Amino acid sequence: MKFCSECGQTVSQLIPPDDTRLRYVCGSCGAIHYQNPKMVVGSIPVWEENGQTKVLLCKRAIEPRLGYWTLPAGFMENDETTEDAARRETEEEAGARVQLHELFSLVNVPHVHQVHLFYRATLLDLDYHAGIESLEVDLYTEDQIPWQDIAFPTVEFTLRAFFADLKKLRSGEGSFTLHTEDIRRRMI
Amino acid sequence: MKFCSECGQTVSQLIPPDDTRLRYVCGSCGAIHYQNPKMVVGSIPVWEENGQTKVLLCKRAIEPRLGYWTLPAGFMENDETTEDAARRETEEEAGARVQLHELFSLVNVPHVHQVHLFYRATLLDLDYHAGIESLEVDLYTEDQIPWQDIAFPTVEFTLRAFFADLKKLRSGEGSFTLHTEDIRRRMI
Repeated sequence: MKFCSECGQTVSQLIPPDDTRLRYVCGSCGAIHYQNPKMVVGSIPVWEENGQTKVLLCKRAIEPRLGYWTLPAGFMENDETTEDAARRETEEEAGARVQLHELFSLVNVPHVHQVHLFYRATLLDLDYHAGIESLEVDLYTEDQIPWQDIAFPTVEFTLRAFFADLKKLRSGEGSFTLHTEDIRRRMI
Repeated sequence: MKFCSECGQTVSQLIPPDDTRLRYVCGSCGAIHYQNPKMVVGSIPVWEENGQTKVLLCKRAIEPRLGYWTLPAGFMENDETTEDAARRETEEEAGARVQLHELFSLVNVPHVHQVHLFYRATLLDLDYHAGIESLEVDLYTEDQIPWQDIAFPTVEFTLRAFFADLKKLRSGEGSFTLHTEDIRRRMI
């Protein structure tokens, strides 16, 4: 940030009175421009077939991590809820309609100023298709997932936790619960 | 937003190519200025005394809702995790140190572009005091809470869900779980 979005004059970094952090402050109109983390919200779209659980993954058509695989997810927009965002991103990136279940993972990625949220979801049909940000979209069992080519650690964390919970559920030893994690290594 | 924060020229609202929403776009350098929801993060600080469960509330010293009661909470900052934010806000507003437990509530407030998160927490000691954004800070049992003077519906939702879960826990019929809600009415 170099210029004030309210009056167009230059901003400088300083700690305002009654504050403890450097902010971008306008020397002309005095506006303080706070910067806050963004939410990335997505789903874990599941399809059950012949006793097998498959998850819908998207191969990224855009940077960062072009060509790598991800769950459908993206930046939450103003005027929507986290569930609205999860459904919209699933439709936009994977052309897929889902019934959302509970919030499954909350992953902090503080060095890129993001919090990632993933909802467990059931695909309503198999009419999915790659959106403009995806090269391919397809269903994968746990064994088929291209684990070496997952785009982001938040997605790998979420997928591994999902299949671990699924195993517990099937053996009668547990059920799906909220998983939280902080990831401090580089995302890309 | 009236001016581009990158080059200082005027912005206008238009739908960029490959997008579906109005954005602030700079006519000079072409920068697209996305605006996204902010996270408000706080805690439910609890103290057990003589078999009673008390929650620490803050009387607001600032607008909006000056003079009304709230749980300690505030805008999450860049470079921190949601748990960091919950601990920092509890320290800043209530002068209190807590051990955080699990995420207890996630409340969407889409018309003000916010998502509120509250963590269940235990006070580590009774050395709390009003921070600069609070007029008073004190412990309240469920019956003592000034229910008519709670600052925000997200806080009322969280407190009512907390005491309902506590009741289930004590009667052996349940435990604390994540509560999610969308609040579409006016916050203030």
